[in-house]
Amino acid sequence: MKGSISMSEIVNKAQLLKKASLKLSEASTKDKNDALKLVGESLIANKELILKENEKDIEQAIASQMKESLIDRLRLTEKRIQEMVEGIKTIIELKDPIWKSSEIWTIENGLNISKMTVPLGVVGIIYESRPNVTVDAFSLTLKSGNCILLRGSSSAIHSNKALVAAIKEGLRKSNISEDVIQLIENTSRESVMEMLKLNEYIDVIIPRGGNSLIQLVVQNATVPTIETGVGNCHVYIDKSAKLEDAVKIVVNAKTQRPGVCNACETVLVHEDIANTFLPMMKDALKGIVELRGCDKTREVIDSVPAVEEDWAEEYLDYILAVKVVKDVDEAIEHIGKYGTMHSESIVTEDYSNAEKFLRKIDAAAVYVNASTRFTDGSVFGFGCEMGISTQKMHARGPMGLNELVTIKYIIRGNGQIRE
Amino acid sequence: MKGSISMSEIVNKAQLLKKASLKLSEASTKDKNDALKLVGESLIANKELILKENEKDIEQAIASQMKESLIDRLRLTEKRIQEMVEGIKTIIELKDPIWKSSEIWTIENGLNISKMTVPLGVVGIIYESRPNVTVDAFSLTLKSGNCILLRGSSSAIHSNKALVAAIKEGLRKSNISEDVIQLIENTSRESVMEMLKLNEYIDVIIPRGGNSLIQLVVQNATVPTIETGVGNCHVYIDKSAKLEDAVKIVVNAKTQRPGVCNACETVLVHEDIANTFLPMMKDALKGIVELRGCDKTREVIDSVPAVEEDWAEEYLDYILAVKVVKDVDEAIEHIGKYGTMHSESIVTEDYSNAEKFLRKIDAAAVYVNASTRFTDGSVFGFGCEMGISTQKMHARGPMGLNELVTIKYIIRGNGQIRE
Repeated sequence: MKGSISMSEIVNKAQLLKKASLKLSEASTKDKNDALKLVGESLIANKELILKENEKDIEQAIASQMKESLIDRLRLTEKRIQEMVEGIKTIIELKDPIWKSSEIWTIENGLNISKMTVPLGVVGIIYESRPNVTVDAFSLTLKSGNCILLRGSSSAIHSNKALVAAIKEGLRKSNISEDVIQLIENTSRESVMEMLKLNEYIDVIIPRGGNSLIQLVVQNATVPTIETGVGNCHVYIDKSAKLEDAVKIVVNAKTQRPGVCNACETVLVHEDIANTFLPMMKDALKGIVELRGCDKTREVIDSVPAVEEDWAEEYLDYILAVKVVKDVDEAIEHIGKYGTMHSESIVTEDYSNAEKFLRKIDAAAVYVNASTRFTDGSVFGFGCEMGISTQKMHARGPMGLNELVTIKYIIRGNGQIRE
Repeated sequence: MKGSISMSEIVNKAQLLKKASLKLSEASTKDKNDALKLVGESLIANKELILKENEKDIEQAIASQMKESLIDRLRLTEKRIQEMVEGIKTIIELKDPIWKSSEIWTIENGLNISKMTVPLGVVGIIYESRPNVTVDAFSLTLKSGNCILLRGSSSAIHSNKALVAAIKEGLRKSNISEDVIQLIENTSRESVMEMLKLNEYIDVIIPRGGNSLIQLVVQNATVPTIETGVGNCHVYIDKSAKLEDAVKIVVNAKTQRPGVCNACETVLVHEDIANTFLPMMKDALKGIVELRGCDKTREVIDSVPAVEEDWAEEYLDYILAVKVVKDVDEAIEHIGKYGTMHSESIVTEDYSNAEKFLRKIDAAAVYVNASTRFTDGSVFGFGCEMGISTQKMHARGPMGLNELVTIKYIIRGNGQIRE
């Protein structure tokens, strides 16, 4: 589809969304839930068509020699469509995050002030190949009263068009306008650049993808953005750690699902236990993970020599950097220098070191004695997530329904004027 | 000072702040409060010098024929310095916003998750002539554990340098590093542009000033920003309003302090009461406020003909646009089109119209039967404010201490790994 559709496609769709968002912000929870249910039914009813369109993307991916792991992310199956529908059901069960407040107070002159949650308005999302993001992002934004502008990758365009058509078919049977979801069919880079400047119609843009996408967005957006997902996560094994737990945690954080952002990329090991711990760890990881060690590590176990770049790398693969450090302070300093403020863990029995690590590490999620793999909206109990924010503004960590809102102050008076 | 200092001034100072912020985030409430007290004492001790330096700015302002109202904003007096110190005392009394949580829970596998408030890190502020902002912004950011990079206007540079020198003198007697505050002395436009791109060292930039400054920042910043202050605020007088209250509210919202962002700029009047209300309002405002009316308004009262631009204008002056509308829906539509999402008020006795207005108006503060002038951190009970956010991300409305924080998730485990 590249470049075949006029640039004004994006403005037109963004305008439709802005208009639709005024109505959607007033929709009842029942109307939103009913619409989500109808969308789920429509996805099931249209599954043959969706799978057929997905097959076109798969064929194109094979022809362009896409890596097998990426093709797998792109592939839809009957089971995966069923999982999307299960995801929608989960979101139906969650509480409506809109028009609620835990802060209502009255000031001296009798004005009653309440801080109420309201939708953000129009949310833009720029994402890579996985077509399930299309359905997840739509469901989350609809439930939180937001409209959504989707800009998926060209490699998934047939799948995304089929999914959005099915979603719109469901919405047409509901009390919610089908205009609340729009897919940008122009998958050129220019379409992203145009989207990034549409402050008039888009309230926030969430990029989901690798570092180059995130940087493109941060450098060029005038619309406020929420960065997600880049995770160079560490596990630090303190002197006092229970070493068997430490081994299990490293193995889990590295290998349970290495391609995700909360997987561990570097292990830091206290020098006093390096001789004991490193061989245990190497044993447990043997044959699965390539180790890249600092000089001190290599005095104890065989490994590829680590270079400066290894400390900053998000491998997303069966590779682990290993560094021996003097103490918890050096570990904290290393993480401050190379970390991406995502998820960091310390394994220790030392109370003071645990507390120091928790306080001093500047990251979305900081762990004591647990795998970094738990940074996840569904694990945290949010039911689902829109991504994991690695920035400090607005939302940090897993973004569920409660992160897709803003607030407004409602002030009720009886004629008050300011003296 | 324009252009006389190397551009690297800003990078150097930003680096110092980033380093200082790591330490400051760990400072105890007592150390922060003691430091604020010492800073207040230092401002008093240095008042002669501060007033002498302020006099230089005033002379320069007079020489450049600055408007009297702006010179007044620039001028410091003994009383104004005393007020700054009172402001610091208020902030000392406020609760520390850091390392607190109202959300702590435990998930199935025993992991205990807490969502804790932490400082943003380094806050940049770009502001216009008022030198009291220098002290207010410093006190708020210090109490919330943040370092601050100040970029004031060239017209206030002597005052700002004297104030920052006094603040640093106070800090040197405390347990807090004097590095936590830095003033950019280069007041060229280039210094703003450089600051806007320093993502590595600055966590958020808050522009305080007119629309052109806000737009410069929004268009060029790669650092996340919080827009503040532009307020094209409306009061809508519904058919069922108590007209005497309505007149008082309009007079207050327009004239109590016309130069501020929560002052009213346009009054919308229901057509059924225009014949009664408009003459009452004109009477009450007579001789003070210039009225710019729509055609229907001018059928009832004499006024300057309003043109399209009047509906969008933030006068900040004794001028009021007046429009007759069909009903509350037309009022809501007008505000949606021309408003700046700051403060909006309806005067009505009609329950359904009040609720409709509260729900449908998309603004930081929405009022029933009260003046728009109350949108203010100290009125809301926040003790003070860093500005009034008119954006939807991170913070909206008055920004007090609780808006100058982010969160991190703290997860305590005993060996949990993900299945």
